Amino acid sequence: MTRPATELAHLNACDRDSFIAALGGIFENAPWVAERAFSVRPFATVAALHDGMTRTVAAAAEAEQLDLIRGHPELGSRVARAGAMTELSRQEQGSLGLDGLSEDEFARFERLNKAYGERFGFPFVICVRRHTRDSILDTFELRLTNSPDAERATALREIGYIARLRLVDAVQGSGKPRTDGRISTHVLDTVSGTPATGVRVVLTERGASAVGLLKETITNADGRTDEPLLSEAPLRIGAYEIAFHIGAYFAAKGMAAASPPFLDVVPVRFAIAEPEGHYHVPLLASPWSYSTYRGS
Amino acid sequence: MTRPATELAHLNACDRDSFIAALGGIFENAPWVAERAFSVRPFATVAALHDGMTRTVAAAAEAEQLDLIRGHPELGSRVARAGAMTELSRQEQGSLGLDGLSEDEFARFERLNKAYGERFGFPFVICVRRHTRDSILDTFELRLTNSPDAERATALREIGYIARLRLVDAVQGSGKPRTDGRISTHVLDTVSGTPATGVRVVLTERGASAVGLLKETITNADGRTDEPLLSEAPLRIGAYEIAFHIGAYFAAKGMAAASPPFLDVVPVRFAIAEPEGHYHVPLLASPWSYSTYRGS
Amino acid sequence: MTRPATELAHLNACDRDSFIAALGGIFENAPWVAERAFSVRPFATVAALHDGMTRTVAAAAEAEQLDLIRGHPELGSRVARAGAMTELSRQEQGSLGLDGLSEDEFARFERLNKAYGERFGFPFVICVRRHTRDSILDTFELRLTNSPDAERATALREIGYIARLRLVDAVQGSGKPRTDGRISTHVLDTVSGTPATGVRVVLTERGASAVGLLKETITNADGRTDEPLLSEAPLRIGAYEIAFHIGAYFAAKGMAAASPPFLDVVPVRFAIAEPEGHYHVPLLASPWSYSTYRGS
Amino acid sequence: MTRPATELAHLNACDRDSFIAALGGIFENAPWVAERAFSVRPFATVAALHDGMTRTVAAAAEAEQLDLIRGHPELGSRVARAGAMTELSRQEQGSLGLDGLSEDEFARFERLNKAYGERFGFPFVICVRRHTRDSILDTFELRLTNSPDAERATALREIGYIARLRLVDAVQGSGKPRTDGRISTHVLDTVSGTPATGVRVVLTERGASAVGLLKETITNADGRTDEPLLSEAPLRIGAYEIAFHIGAYFAAKGMAAASPPFLDVVPVRFAIAEPEGHYHVPLLASPWSYSTYRGS
Repeated sequence: MTRPATELAHLNACDRDSFIAALGGIFENAPWVAERAFSVRPFATVAALHDGMTRTVAAAAEAEQLDLIRGHPELGSRVARAGAMTELSRQEQGSLGLDGLSEDEFARFERLNKAYGERFGFPFVICVRRHTRDSILDTFELRLTNSPDAERATALREIGYIARLRLVDAVQGSGKPRTDGRISTHVLDTVSGTPATGVRVVLTERGASAVGLLKETITNADGRTDEPLLSEAPLRIGAYEIAFHIGAYFAAKGMAAASPPFLDVVPVRFAIAEPEGHYHVPLLASPWSYSTYRGS
Repeated sequence: MTRPATELAHLNACDRDSFIAALGGIFENAPWVAERAFSVRPFATVAALHDGMTRTVAAAAEAEQLDLIRGHPELGSRVARAGAMTELSRQEQGSLGLDGLSEDEFARFERLNKAYGERFGFPFVICVRRHTRDSILDTFELRLTNSPDAERATALREIGYIARLRLVDAVQGSGKPRTDGRISTHVLDTVSGTPATGVRVVLTERGASAVGLLKETITNADGRTDEPLLSEAPLRIGAYEIAFHIGAYFAAKGMAAASPPFLDVVPVRFAIAEPEGHYHVPLLASPWSYSTYRGS
Repeated sequence: MTRPATELAHLNACDRDSFIAALGGIFENAPWVAERAFSVRPFATVAALHDGMTRTVAAAAEAEQLDLIRGHPELGSRVARAGAMTELSRQEQGSLGLDGLSEDEFARFERLNKAYGERFGFPFVICVRRHTRDSILDTFELRLTNSPDAERATALREIGYIARLRLVDAVQGSGKPRTDGRISTHVLDTVSGTPATGVRVVLTERGASAVGLLKETITNADGRTDEPLLSEAPLRIGAYEIAFHIGAYFAAKGMAAASPPFLDVVPVRFAIAEPEGHYHVPLLASPWSYSTYRGS
Repeated sequence: MTRPATELAHLNACDRDSFIAALGGIFENAPWVAERAFSVRPFATVAALHDGMTRTVAAAAEAEQLDLIRGHPELGSRVARAGAMTELSRQEQGSLGLDGLSEDEFARFERLNKAYGERFGFPFVICVRRHTRDSILDTFELRLTNSPDAERATALREIGYIARLRLVDAVQGSGKPRTDGRISTHVLDTVSGTPATGVRVVLTERGASAVGLLKETITNADGRTDEPLLSEAPLRIGAYEIAFHIGAYFAAKGMAAASPPFLDVVPVRFAIAEPEGHYHVPLLASPWSYSTYRGS
């Protein structure tokens, strides 16, 4: 369970020990980041607080930065399985099921962790909550080809993402940094020039390790879904599909010109690259044609 | 092997026995169709010959029509397995692998054949060369719900399709009826306003019993494929997908704006309902949007 | 000037004379409509009040209905020019400049008014605030071809529209009937998958008597305009154009591939048929392609 | 009238005097170009002959190049009006009506010719057959801002275009360089998934000095026009519109959902920048939406 959030105003006014007690865990096993950030109080917004803490890291000595990175647990490792992780790390890895890998998956992570450790001398750090399992494995392989300097910068950037998400959970106050993304849709019926109402819309994650179904819903009177298809968290970098059941929609309107209908379930496949972005993916459709695009 | 084709001019001029020898097998086990058609010679075109023969069937007594239907083998039946079919029927059923079903598939056909025979008193006839396996099974279930009169008419229409294809193979001459369909495509790059060249395009058949890959090719300088994706035969009624590899295309042009790219392999799924139709299915694409439609 | 609006609650509670004083002018020269509606008080909403009054008209004797129609001034007539109209009618006709026609236009109205009067025995009534001048003239010619019964029904429907607009101005309260329409737009850049910001957008009315420029603005960071292109009143039935200056937009982004650019100012022409509707007319554009549609 | 064309084979075999007699006029008042090209005979194709002649010009001394440019008449000048031009120049300028300018237009050309002559010391040369009047005037203003060296190169390039068109008229043989452009269209009905047949299509040239209507026609059974909208000559650089009368088309099919229809005459405006290019400008339309793009 997460602790109750602290007020930003309190953090700007409290004593040093309370400040460190509240924020010492934002950067994994590195209470010194909070300690040093204390000296540049006050922070006008939560985003400014995050900014202050990441600048503290950027200004630290290289050895301190390496220690910070080394303070993170391996992904999908024995340590994780044995439970010897901070509670926050356990939750984050658990959100992707990385704390309960199969033997095969465990072996793949083992191999990657080993190669990575030998090459860089520190564990692979990634902000798990911004990724699908497929995307973590792809990124892992890719980052193995980085130079040591580029990889250290990448690891610190990921640590900044992790800290940002922890901070948004831990601190109440105005000016929170944006951490949520959104997938939304809209179906237009170009035959009648109206929103397409009652169209079944199914969002799935795709890929070898994908979780599959994420949302199944029906378009409303405005051709939209009552809630976004995905929101209230970072989107996970990865591959997705929205399936639009327009064959059934047009058949119900008496407009199924052919049998079987030329278009039935229209799949739109796309990738998320910005976890904090808004992906509006509409469909303009007739029984014989459709268009889709990243909208806004 | 098919016999060498006979010239239409010869059929218009030859004696009755030669005429029947040449065309007696066009309607399965029913040389009387050719016999009666002989009396309305000459035929200006192959299509007129087909027309003359199907009119002969339409004008026949109901009992003769039923005998004609009953002259056809069951689909996927023991008879087929035992090889006790006319050579033409064997080839036609073989084109879908219906002469070599698995035990499970055989059992499904057995069940449908039995139900159908009990309901209508004649075997299920369908022009196999115009269908996928999935479409045959769907149609089989559907036709079981017909009234006897409607179903007899449907069976005769299918026999007409079978005869048309046999006739086109068996007779040389002008005015052949159209029996070939076509699937073609065209990829436009809307960023540069040019044909998209070098795009991988993969056509597959979809469905539980589908054969899968039908064609894999690359778009040429005009954004088209050098040959149609499918042609030179009736299209098979059923479900298809064209996968357009536009992610790789735009990446090769240095236009991959995001990583992973928003659009990578774009699947366009559609159904064929007219085996003799032209299905032109183009894609207009940018890295962030696409349109598709049945064109011409 | 319009009088200050009366509260619906007051109308539901006041005495008969006050009720008639407040609403006697809603139906032109026909205080009896308010009189009779008084007896079916109270009204839960302004829409219900309008409904009550139009039902009163529908339930009236044919002779009363004809008197009601005859109580309206001619459009663009000598009476109008002489100022002998109710203040509300003067304002309504004035909104289209019908109180100040040129000699030629006056002559056209004269001719139409004369033909109409001879055919139907009452003046041509139309809810001017829902029309452009061109649409009034087109409708005038068209309605001359109606049967007398159909035309009487049409005139009463128009009188209902006039009353609805007057009521919305005259009465404060919840549940106002919808009288406003809206034209909005949105420009998407399909090359970059983002809203197109800074695109000049010009809305004009089109037609022989059109007023021309209605709005000229620039798209904002979301590719929309800060305010709808038109709103806060009924849209006027008629012909419109939105000109999108996308040539300048793409040139400013360094994407003008050809000189002169293939697309420069893109005109989208459409007609408004529902004055109370929302017409969302977006543009999805690259330097070489665009799509538009009635959206929502 | 143009002279009968000479065979390329004859030019490759004839004597020097005949060669110069045939080709001496290809470059205006500069028979030396043909003279020198004679020495690099034979030419495998007409394109190779054109290539040989333009290389001769490129290899000439700067003074000779300037003389070549100075051998061209001014555009729309007194000389032109007085008829003191070569027959070929007279025809070329006449094709745009530049031999019969109004006093105002004459004055504008006079002013531009004067400014240009003062700046560069030679007359403004442009391949008139590749331009509209508006495009010539725009280009004239623009080229006044060039450096002298850039402008000399531009003038020689235009002279090459002029020569290419004269050569294609003057010489018969294989391998002619491409000098013709083409505008074509195609209308698809996305409601029925078929070509839109019987749609009125009107091509006009646009601009202050534009000739207006170029072609008015009707789409055929394939949704195309029986002939290209424009072909068999270079397209003229400039601004164009194709008006598609889809309102009438959908009304005739009983699909006019609104009155007046949302879409009636759809204007598509575009510019030609490559006179030898193929501009395929299709329309995909429903009563409520359309797409257009440069196709192929």
